[in-house]
Amino acid sequence: MPVTTNPLRDPRDKRLPRIAGPSGIVIFGVTGDLSRKKLMPAIYDLANRGLLPPGFSLVGFARRDWANEDFGTVVHDAVKQYARTPFSEEVWRHLAEGFRFVQGTFDDDGAFDTLAATLKELDDTRGTGGNHAFYFSIPPSSFPVVCKQLARSGLAAHTPDQWRRVVIEKPFGHDLASAQDLNTVVNSVFPPESVFRIDHYLGKETVQNLLALRFANQLFEPIWNAHYVDHVQITMAEDIGIGGRAGYYDGIGAARDVIQNHLIQLLALTAMEEPVSFEPKDLRAEKTKVLSQVQLPKDLLASTARGQYTGGWQGGAKVVGYLEEDGISPSSTTETFAAVKLLVDTRRWAGVPFYLRTGKRLGRRVSEIAMVFKRAPHLPFSHTDTEELGANAIVIRVQPDEGVTIRFGSKVPGPSMEVRDVSMDFSYGQSFTEASPEAYERLILDVLLGEPSLFPQDEEVELSWKILDPIEKAWSRKGTQPDSYQSGTWGPASADAMMARDGRVWRRP
Amino acid sequence: MPVTTNPLRDPRDKRLPRIAGPSGIVIFGVTGDLSRKKLMPAIYDLANRGLLPPGFSLVGFARRDWANEDFGTVVHDAVKQYARTPFSEEVWRHLAEGFRFVQGTFDDDGAFDTLAATLKELDDTRGTGGNHAFYFSIPPSSFPVVCKQLARSGLAAHTPDQWRRVVIEKPFGHDLASAQDLNTVVNSVFPPESVFRIDHYLGKETVQNLLALRFANQLFEPIWNAHYVDHVQITMAEDIGIGGRAGYYDGIGAARDVIQNHLIQLLALTAMEEPVSFEPKDLRAEKTKVLSQVQLPKDLLASTARGQYTGGWQGGAKVVGYLEEDGISPSSTTETFAAVKLLVDTRRWAGVPFYLRTGKRLGRRVSEIAMVFKRAPHLPFSHTDTEELGANAIVIRVQPDEGVTIRFGSKVPGPSMEVRDVSMDFSYGQSFTEASPEAYERLILDVLLGEPSLFPQDEEVELSWKILDPIEKAWSRKGTQPDSYQSGTWGPASADAMMARDGRVWRRP
Repeated sequence: MPVTTNPLRDPRDKRLPRIAGPSGIVIFGVTGDLSRKKLMPAIYDLANRGLLPPGFSLVGFARRDWANEDFGTVVHDAVKQYARTPFSEEVWRHLAEGFRFVQGTFDDDGAFDTLAATLKELDDTRGTGGNHAFYFSIPPSSFPVVCKQLARSGLAAHTPDQWRRVVIEKPFGHDLASAQDLNTVVNSVFPPESVFRIDHYLGKETVQNLLALRFANQLFEPIWNAHYVDHVQITMAEDIGIGGRAGYYDGIGAARDVIQNHLIQLLALTAMEEPVSFEPKDLRAEKTKVLSQVQLPKDLLASTARGQYTGGWQGGAKVVGYLEEDGISPSSTTETFAAVKLLVDTRRWAGVPFYLRTGKRLGRRVSEIAMVFKRAPHLPFSHTDTEELGANAIVIRVQPDEGVTIRFGSKVPGPSMEVRDVSMDFSYGQSFTEASPEAYERLILDVLLGEPSLFPQDEEVELSWKILDPIEKAWSRKGTQPDSYQSGTWGPASADAMMARDGRVWRRP
Repeated sequence: MPVTTNPLRDPRDKRLPRIAGPSGIVIFGVTGDLSRKKLMPAIYDLANRGLLPPGFSLVGFARRDWANEDFGTVVHDAVKQYARTPFSEEVWRHLAEGFRFVQGTFDDDGAFDTLAATLKELDDTRGTGGNHAFYFSIPPSSFPVVCKQLARSGLAAHTPDQWRRVVIEKPFGHDLASAQDLNTVVNSVFPPESVFRIDHYLGKETVQNLLALRFANQLFEPIWNAHYVDHVQITMAEDIGIGGRAGYYDGIGAARDVIQNHLIQLLALTAMEEPVSFEPKDLRAEKTKVLSQVQLPKDLLASTARGQYTGGWQGGAKVVGYLEEDGISPSSTTETFAAVKLLVDTRRWAGVPFYLRTGKRLGRRVSEIAMVFKRAPHLPFSHTDTEELGANAIVIRVQPDEGVTIRFGSKVPGPSMEVRDVSMDFSYGQSFTEASPEAYERLILDVLLGEPSLFPQDEEVELSWKILDPIEKAWSRKGTQPDSYQSGTWGPASADAMMARDGRVWRRP
C-alpha cells in the first residue's frame, strides 16, 4: 500500500522537500564506518522528517553472519548514537519493518540470488515498486564484481516503470585512466543517468548557496571577474590527522582525496558562467565548460606544494606525525597537504590564478572560497594612510559557520584619513531559523528522487583527473618525500614560497 | 609663553590630532543653548585631550551684565553637564584662566572697543598671538552689524602673522538671493578662506568614512553607478519635534533646515567623482562639479512631498501636533517633513533618481544613505523562488550606530532554491576601539587649525539654494497647508505616493 504523498502537506509549498516515491536502498559494505556513522542515521532522519515512502526498505549486504534482527540492532545503535533528529519509537518501529540482511561475499552467486529474491519479496510485501538504489560503500576494486553480479542476477535491469540506481563514494579512480576504467565498468551495467557519485561537500548547502549568492544578486556578479579579482583561494583545511583511515589514505594523498573532487567542484561553481537554468543538464554544461578550460602553469613544481605532517601539538594534545600513524609505512611518500595553482582560460578569468589547498593537521578546521580583489588605486590617499590596508575580499565560508564574510577598508575614527581592514559577516545559522539537513540526508533523498544536480557526472570526474594527472606525474618524477610541516601549522614552507613567487600570501582563515 | 607642541607626543604619529597653535575664540550669542550644550563642552573636551594651546582664551560676548567670574560659572556648569570626557580640576583651572566676558549689544561701539582691548590683553598676557576666531551663534539678521563692528574696531584685520576667522551656523540664508547677500556681507570683511560654515553633520566621521569606503576599496566603486544602482535614498529622520526652537524653525521648515545643507552635502559626497586628493580645494572641486549637475524633475509637485506632524504617540508618550507646539501659529504652513527627488546629470548617474527626505516626529531617529541596486535578472530562478527577494542595497548608516549594512539575497536552507533577503553589518563602534570625538570638537579644532575640508564654501551653499529654490517656489505657488502625518509615522501619504509613481518604495530604516 505505497503512499507517495502526505495529505497533511500542501504540495504547492515548495519550501518542503519532496517525498521519495516507493523505493528502497541496498548497502554493500554495510558493516563499515560510513554506513554506521552517516548512512543509517541519515535514513532514520529522513524517515523521521516524513520524507521516505511508507514501505521504504533498507537491505544490508555483508559477509557477517547476521540475522535480520542483528542487523536491526546495529542500525538501532547507529541511529541512537548519530542521528540528528530525536528518536521516535513509532518512526523507528515502522522503519525497521523494512530492514533485511543478506549474508554473502561478492563472488557468491547464491548471495546475489538471495538478494534478488529479497528485493522481490519487498516489492510484493512493502510496495517498493521495483525501485532500488545500490549503495557501494566498498573499495573501487570491488566495483567490477558487484556490477557483474547485479547484472547477472537481473538486479541492474531498469524498466520504464522501475528504476535501479547505483551510488558511488570517492575515490572515483586514482587518475584519469582508472577513472575511465571505473566509468566503463559501472556504465556497462548502469547508464550514466543512473550513477550517483557522492561528494558530501556538495550535499551541504554550499552549491546552492553559491549559485544564489552569485546569480540572485546584483552586487557581486559585476565584480566577479578578472577586471576586479586578483586571485581566488579555495581552502579545505582539517585539524584532524588520518584517524583510522590509513588503509584508504596512504598512497592516495591529499590531492586525490580532496582537490580532485571537492576543491575542483568548488572551483567550477565559483568560476562558471551563469547557467540558463538550475536544471542538472544546464548546470553540468557550465561546470564542464569551465573545467575544460582549466590550464596548468608551465612550471608545475614551482606552482604546487606537497607536505606531510610531523608530530606536534593540536587542541592541547600531543599528536604524532604521519609516518608514526598506525598502519603507515615509515617511508611513505603520501602527501597530507597539497596546494596547486590553476588558471581558468576564459574571458572572465584570464590571468586570475585559482589557488587550491587542502591538508590534514592544519591550524584549524575550515573550508572557504576567498575572492581576493585587486587593490584600489588609492590615488587620493597618502601612502601611510593605506599601509595597514589589505586587499578587499569576499569569503564564502563553507564550514564551520556557513556564511559570507566581506573584508574591506574603513577609516579609523580620528582626525587622519588612515584606512584599515574591517569585515562584515553573514551567517546562515544566525539568519535563518530553518535548520540545514545533514549532507547525507539531502544526497540520499536526491538519489531516491532521481535528482542528479548535486552529483558529479562522468565527464566532470574525468576532467578533474585531467587537471590533476600532470601534477601527480610531476610530483612522482620529482619522487622525493613531501616537505614536512608541523602538526597545527598551515602547511610546509614550500606552500608559502609558492605564493611568495607570485607576490601573494595564503589567507590564515 | 605659548607652547605649540607637546614633547610627549610623537609628531610622526599621524593618528593623533594636530594641536592648535596660539589662538582664542570669541563667541557671540554666548548665552544661547548651542553655546552651553555644544560649544563650551567641546572646548573643554579639546583642552582635556591636550589639543588646545596652553594660552587658549575663550571670550563671551552678550548683553548680560556678567563679570568674568559669572561667565566662568556658566561655562563650568555647562562643562559639568555636557562634556564628553571626565572632569579634571587641573585642566579646568588652567582653561578658565583664559576666560573673559565682554558685556554689550551689537550696535554698541564701546563694547567692541572693549572686546578689541580684551583680545589685545590676551595676546599680551596669554600669548594668543593675535589669532582669533569669531563664532556667530546669532541670527543671520545680526551678521551685518557684527561684521561692521569687527571691521570698524580693527578686529577683522588679519595679517600674514595673525589670522582672524569667522564661524557661521546654518541657516546660510533662506534662498539663493539671501545666501548671496549673506556671503557678500561676510566676505566684505572676511575673505572666503576665513569663513567656516558649521554643518555639524559633516563634523561627524561621515564625510571621511564615505570617502574611505568609496575610494579605498575595490569592491564598491565598480558598482557605484547607473549601470547597477537603481536609485539612492538619503534620509535624515528625527523622532523629536521642534522642542524649544519654534522661533528658529517656523517659516524655515524641513527643506531649508536639513535638505539644503546636510542632505545635499551627503548627495554630493555620494555622487561625486574621485577627487585627485583629499585637499580641500580638490574635494570642493568635485562637490561643486556634481552639485552644478543636479537637475530637478519636470513636475516638481509630483516629485516632492511636504508634511506637517499632528499629535500622536512617540516613545510611549503622547505628543502634540506642530500647530499645537508652543510659539507656533495655528495657521502655520511650515513643513516638518520634506521629500524631494533629484537627478544628477553626469555620465555616472544618468537616469538614477536621488530621493532625499527629512522630517521631525518620524518613526525613529536615523540618518542613512542607501544605494538601492537594480534587481538581478534572475534568469535561472523560477519566479516563486525569488518572490520574497528585494533589491540589493548598500546602506551607509550615519547615525545612530555609524557603519555599513549590505542587504543581499541568500538561499533559504532546505531543498528548494528559494532566495530571501539577508543583511550583513559593519559597525564602527564595534570594530574600532578608537572613540569618535563629538562633531563640534572636530569642527572647532579644524577652525583653529585653519583646516577647511569639512566646511561648505560659498559656491556649494549657493548651488544648494539653486537646487532648492524652484522647489520652495513651487510649494509656495501651491500655497496650501502641508499634508499632515501622525507623529511616530514615516511622513505623509503623499510621500509614499511620490515614490509609488516611480514604482518604488521608501525604506523603513
